[in-house]
Amino acid sequence: MNIEMIRAAARRLEWHARRTPLLSSPFLDEIAGRRVLVKAECLQHTGSFKFRGAWSALTALPERAHGVLAFSSGNHAQGVAYAARLRGLPSVILMPADAPAIKVANTRALGAEVVLYDRAREDRDALGAALAEKRGLELIQPFDHPQVIAGQGTTGLEIAEQARGEGVESAQVLVCCGGGGLTSGIALALEDAAPGLQPRTVEPEGFDDVAQSLARGEIVTLPLRTGLCDAIVTPAPGKLTWPILKRLCGPGLVVTDAQVLRAMALAYERLKLVLEPGGAVALAAALFQPEALEGAAVIVTASGGNVDRAVFMRALREGGEDAPR
Amino acid sequence: MNIEMIRAAARRLEWHARRTPLLSSPFLDEIAGRRVLVKAECLQHTGSFKFRGAWSALTALPERAHGVLAFSSGNHAQGVAYAARLRGLPSVILMPADAPAIKVANTRALGAEVVLYDRAREDRDALGAALAEKRGLELIQPFDHPQVIAGQGTTGLEIAEQARGEGVESAQVLVCCGGGGLTSGIALALEDAAPGLQPRTVEPEGFDDVAQSLARGEIVTLPLRTGLCDAIVTPAPGKLTWPILKRLCGPGLVVTDAQVLRAMALAYERLKLVLEPGGAVALAAALFQPEALEGAAVIVTASGGNVDRAVFMRALREGGEDAPR
Repeated sequence: MNIEMIRAAARRLEWHARRTPLLSSPFLDEIAGRRVLVKAECLQHTGSFKFRGAWSALTALPERAHGVLAFSSGNHAQGVAYAARLRGLPSVILMPADAPAIKVANTRALGAEVVLYDRAREDRDALGAALAEKRGLELIQPFDHPQVIAGQGTTGLEIAEQARGEGVESAQVLVCCGGGGLTSGIALALEDAAPGLQPRTVEPEGFDDVAQSLARGEIVTLPLRTGLCDAIVTPAPGKLTWPILKRLCGPGLVVTDAQVLRAMALAYERLKLVLEPGGAVALAAALFQPEALEGAAVIVTASGGNVDRAVFMRALREGGEDAPR
Repeated sequence: MNIEMIRAAARRLEWHARRTPLLSSPFLDEIAGRRVLVKAECLQHTGSFKFRGAWSALTALPERAHGVLAFSSGNHAQGVAYAARLRGLPSVILMPADAPAIKVANTRALGAEVVLYDRAREDRDALGAALAEKRGLELIQPFDHPQVIAGQGTTGLEIAEQARGEGVESAQVLVCCGGGGLTSGIALALEDAAPGLQPRTVEPEGFDDVAQSLARGEIVTLPLRTGLCDAIVTPAPGKLTWPILKRLCGPGLVVTDAQVLRAMALAYERLKLVLEPGGAVALAAALFQPEALEGAAVIVTASGGNVDRAVFMRALREGGEDAPR
């Protein structure tokens, strides 16, 4: 992994991925006690940054590949499905049979063939390997894949340029962190393109494997559970992402679910953005943990907006202006 | 009013107003039966296009002005207040004493002095004139003001450029229309910068004074009432805007409240945008009145996102995927 791979991915993404805006609101600055700049990656194709990595990987496929395969029922699945459709390549997405019907329908509508498997009785990896072999498909991992990391890193190149446009040369950059694909890509990009911008991970309470790993200096693995911030719940940082996170990221931040819901309500109110819980953790840290941060400005990724209506309405009810903090 | 005023306003707005993105979703294209490109002006400063006109007017004030005055409890008030704060000028906003507390608080927080008056017993215009005289303030009308129209017209210059970037040279451009400031500005801009793009007004059912005026060829005035789409409810087109609308706009479109709520839910779901009812009428026409439109693509303005939580939640409940159409 190096900056040249990210710059090459940026050239491949030009005119295909969206250059998402860097937004702000005086009301958020007031709450945070410093300038808050929000990279609105929820406005990316398919509603999350995942399209970047998918497009990057799909435009750098080995010649033998006749299509792509992914294991996912979430943002990665949609990113891969839509990128493949735009490239005119077949995509197969393996999903558990108990995945929500709306996610299956969305992924199919974006052009993928969805193959359902029984979580209790079938081995996903073996099933995927057999499918890949039989049909000449290339597996696109959600974060531990060099071209996926390179694609996510293009977000960092844009942040570097846009922050400069705002007159911000020195700031902490808070990144919503699951397996670390987005964070490690951004970290590599900033190291080269904006060394005054310092990346830090943000995770939900109880799912802070990266923060714990950074504190200990070695990978900590947590039990896999589900939580409000489902899009970024992972048991441990990846094999490719971890060395980058360890070398380049400041101490990890951890936010509560209540802070996440309130950040979602404020993104609705003050930025007119729909954020999913996992896409709001960085904003939550910027707004509600100002004492853990340094500098006159902070940059946050708002990494996705694919949220069930019921969860979004809960955020508006519980996280709104007049809700208890 | 001419294109040079709009180009001059664009130069004054550069680095101050946001260049908002032109968004799309394959799911919306599918519903509409053609490409739908959405100019996300809800992401503008203060959550609506009104900031453009305010900034334009404030950077072209006559020398005698020591500050500005506006009558508004809505988007125009917030645009003027924030533009004045950024320019370091005092602003006074006259609002009825029964305006929602949150709107008064927001406008104050953006730096304005809010003066409340009693709708039943005081004459707003006389009060405003006296204040303006006494304190050397310049009145900024919400739409019937040349520099306001010029500022809103910068949206049209951006649409022309962004549509070309998407390969769209010929399309109808649907604009959410109240008094016609945004529509007339966009119409003048497109006439010069993208003659293949044809502007059309969109209004809510029962408030279609512009559509009726366009059909009759003369100004029709409707009784002033309130409605779901409060931001664009006006009794008649303006004195300055009407001749431009009449000369340049195709037949006006009219949408139902149910279509508006459904467009809001789809903007939430597919674009990750928060739209207010008045900011969703153009998208509603594009999605649900395809037979009234022509061409392989349609461009719509999503002109604002300042919506009460209760109304937004109503849209998610009534306008969602599984709601009756």
